Amino acid sequence: MIVDVQGRADTRRIPINRVGIKDLAYPVRVKNGAGEIQSTVATLNMYVNLPESFKGTHMSRFLEILHATSELSLASLPVLLETVTRRLESNDAYIEATFPYFVAKAAPVTGVRSMMDYRVTIVGKRSGDDTELTVRVVVPVTSLCPSSKDISQYGAHNQRSHVTITARIAGEIGIDDIIRIAEVEGSAEVFGILKRADEKYVTEHAYDHPKFVEDLVRDVAIRLNGEPRISGYVVEAENFESIHNHSAYALIEKPVP
Amino acid sequence: MIVDVQGRADTRRIPINRVGIKDLAYPVRVKNGAGEIQSTVATLNMYVNLPESFKGTHMSRFLEILHATSELSLASLPVLLETVTRRLESNDAYIEATFPYFVAKAAPVTGVRSMMDYRVTIVGKRSGDDTELTVRVVVPVTSLCPSSKDISQYGAHNQRSHVTITARIAGEIGIDDIIRIAEVEGSAEVFGILKRADEKYVTEHAYDHPKFVEDLVRDVAIRLNGEPRISGYVVEAENFESIHNHSAYALIEKPVP
Amino acid sequence: MIVDVQGRADTRRIPINRVGIKDLAYPVRVKNGAGEIQSTVATLNMYVNLPESFKGTHMSRFLEILHATSELSLASLPVLLETVTRRLESNDAYIEATFPYFVAKAAPVTGVRSMMDYRVTIVGKRSGDDTELTVRVVVPVTSLCPSSKDISQYGAHNQRSHVTITARIAGEIGIDDIIRIAEVEGSAEVFGILKRADEKYVTEHAYDHPKFVEDLVRDVAIRLNGEPRISGYVVEAENFESIHNHSAYALIEKPVP
Amino acid sequence: MIVDVQGRADTRRIPINRVGIKDLAYPVRVKNGAGEIQSTVATLNMYVNLPESFKGTHMSRFLEILHATSELSLASLPVLLETVTRRLESNDAYIEATFPYFVAKAAPVTGVRSMMDYRVTIVGKRSGDDTELTVRVVVPVTSLCPSSKDISQYGAHNQRSHVTITARIAGEIGIDDIIRIAEVEGSAEVFGILKRADEKYVTEHAYDHPKFVEDLVRDVAIRLNGEPRISGYVVEAENFESIHNHSAYALIEKPVP
Repeated sequence: MIVDVQGRADTRRIPINRVGIKDLAYPVRVKNGAGEIQSTVATLNMYVNLPESFKGTHMSRFLEILHATSELSLASLPVLLETVTRRLESNDAYIEATFPYFVAKAAPVTGVRSMMDYRVTIVGKRSGDDTELTVRVVVPVTSLCPSSKDISQYGAHNQRSHVTITARIAGEIGIDDIIRIAEVEGSAEVFGILKRADEKYVTEHAYDHPKFVEDLVRDVAIRLNGEPRISGYVVEAENFESIHNHSAYALIEKPVP
Repeated sequence: MIVDVQGRADTRRIPINRVGIKDLAYPVRVKNGAGEIQSTVATLNMYVNLPESFKGTHMSRFLEILHATSELSLASLPVLLETVTRRLESNDAYIEATFPYFVAKAAPVTGVRSMMDYRVTIVGKRSGDDTELTVRVVVPVTSLCPSSKDISQYGAHNQRSHVTITARIAGEIGIDDIIRIAEVEGSAEVFGILKRADEKYVTEHAYDHPKFVEDLVRDVAIRLNGEPRISGYVVEAENFESIHNHSAYALIEKPVP
Repeated sequence: MIVDVQGRADTRRIPINRVGIKDLAYPVRVKNGAGEIQSTVATLNMYVNLPESFKGTHMSRFLEILHATSELSLASLPVLLETVTRRLESNDAYIEATFPYFVAKAAPVTGVRSMMDYRVTIVGKRSGDDTELTVRVVVPVTSLCPSSKDISQYGAHNQRSHVTITARIAGEIGIDDIIRIAEVEGSAEVFGILKRADEKYVTEHAYDHPKFVEDLVRDVAIRLNGEPRISGYVVEAENFESIHNHSAYALIEKPVP
Repeated sequence: MIVDVQGRADTRRIPINRVGIKDLAYPVRVKNGAGEIQSTVATLNMYVNLPESFKGTHMSRFLEILHATSELSLASLPVLLETVTRRLESNDAYIEATFPYFVAKAAPVTGVRSMMDYRVTIVGKRSGDDTELTVRVVVPVTSLCPSSKDISQYGAHNQRSHVTITARIAGEIGIDDIIRIAEVEGSAEVFGILKRADEKYVTEHAYDHPKFVEDLVRDVAIRLNGEPRISGYVVEAENFESIHNHSAYALIEKPVP
């Protein structure tokens, strides 16, 4: 018989907040708010707490649980967290999955369809009988500088920006809905394919809607404040400045009540 | 005269928690606990808060302040934070600098000296008249699996691990001191140059000191608990497992009282 | 009518070797050598040459072609390259797709099945009527240091290593076959799930098969030299040394005749 | 006495093209063309060839050589390469150092000075008695889309771009000179600090100098063709498109005669 070193007693009297596996690449099927399934590849972190009396956790069980999981979504996370606490004999569980998420978008004038990718993270935390769900979406938009527009006779510097929403979920809401909250507040949206008529449209739209990084986070915050399915959030905007080699950045936090 | 768009009034009534510059690469001179100066290159984030009544902050002032700064250290951060709040007319300020930090180490048997690099982050937060200082060090060590050693007739899998300490500073302490707290608790230390006698030493030392990722964080936590100059911390360990393509991970947090 | 700026004449008389789109994230279905389909997410680069007489290429056509592509494989690349040259009216075409690729592996003793991920790149180059196909696989293995084993009374440092094969394809060969050429030459293979009996096996197997980074590339090169479906290659090994904070590295190149 | 496993004979009859250390972080002093010294941090790769008759190389010698090196530059690389071949008893040597490199630039109108960072790589290859030196610089610039400007009633999308020059050195030339070749050919240059008058200038300058990714590489190629101290080159441009979530890319290669 092979000994179980992890199961031995520990005498240091120090409980561990989180222990488990990190940076596991895994093929996943993700369900969106509309119930549609998308195949993608996630990077997963899965942790439990460890009481002071145990020397180690049983790492391979995380992978066995994952192997038996058919799909990942905000709706399925609570069950997965419950399975983890039961199989790992823990009180707390934490699951975090980050994956590229694709949405087919229509170009604004020609309607030509193409894929846009967003980096999405879903996080589930279970502590005792409480479960918290959080979604993070990183949404690329165009931002156009109001100051540059105002002070210049023509033109205005603009750039790709990332608007990141990290939202505590308080009701049934789809990933796509959260992405849209950020996307519509850029100076212009970003697309895969733009034909010439579309490129003219987004260029002029950005020029007509200049926004500082401060405007991006404020305008997204206003929308988030009106969304009852989100109880707290952090919204960040990062402009990869076209005139500098560093970013402009802003953040607004609304704590969960 | 060129208009000051950032200085205009804003009517959305949404204050911004943090706004400023992100991911700025900058050559810095860093002072360690012993007062010695080291030239390195930092990635800097510098933020202030923005009251609801202002449309934007003045980004270029962050760089002007940095341009006039001769060196960066835990000791100099409070002054820099005070300068930022005064020049940006803000209540809060946040400065974060991440840089490679080098320590000349002697090999354990031959004493041959070589450089070891650590990723260090120093963070200063000022809110009103309160200033908090935090240091994060990422310390590479060797970890050797106790289970693998116990169940195998010979050998034991081992790997490079990162022990990360994020410490709230409550007294005068050097970066080197915090690094040592993590470094001495690996199964073995990591070095730049090891001659054959040294390699024999660290190989046998690791085999004599097997540690799970759980052991790493507990043993470092015990040391941190005994350090009065650190009032709260997070300690993490990540093993880049040699037998898997994912990491094992553990975390212990002691909140600041 | 909207003008076609890209289609205008250029007078600088400088042809462009490659022009197109880079770092496009895209969901793809990949076919392996056994004809099975796998859903994954690729990062794509697609280029053509541009004669000196044209000002610009038509970037959106690359995405239109991709949008109409149902699956990606070594077998389908030649057709895709031909489509690109025709639609972009070019002489040359270059397509590069990098994606995580998963293989279900059985643990060595218990036979427990789990997923292993490999980073795979397939490259197709078309120039006139010639088409070249190249595959790159990055294969994680365990390496155990022969010197450390020999000089130590017990134990031996080991670590995760990456063996990378970049192979010019000269016959019908599957991605899995190329992965196996690298994988079997580690000191031990790497797995997703290892039960205790498996962990004992891989630990002892690595100790019984110590290999320097030099041994890894030589032993893989010998196998590649005996593979008629590969006409030329570069094999690299990188050991993420457990006793250092840098890598050991070796490379052997056999040019295509 | 401790055995020298690396020095043993090898019977596989397979020579190794490159073997050594990779991804070593090291503080370096870099000399520019004007003879000025700059402290920075490099990531280093150092390799030699290994004849078929030897089992392994002596990795620690690379670090010992580096430890004794006071500064790194195109001028000092040949001596360093010669030292490596002598100490490692090899025929070939390869040294590659990548580091952030800083230049103090004056803003275009106000003349305010600030630091710009560039990623620079210097590569030295020695084979027998021949030594080749190569420099790569990654230069951030602004690019403004000619098509977007032409088809839109106002505005034009623009973005940060990277122009990368990889140049074989044929005469005494400074890193700064190669950076300038790329920098002046953007739609506008990129700066650390821009006051309002400067921001107006670069915005209008970019609008007055629209360039496709194809224009960037052609215009830089024309300058490189006229530079006798560079005997061959690859010039690349990558636009981090503000209207897409992927890059536009172009490359021109002039082989060394």
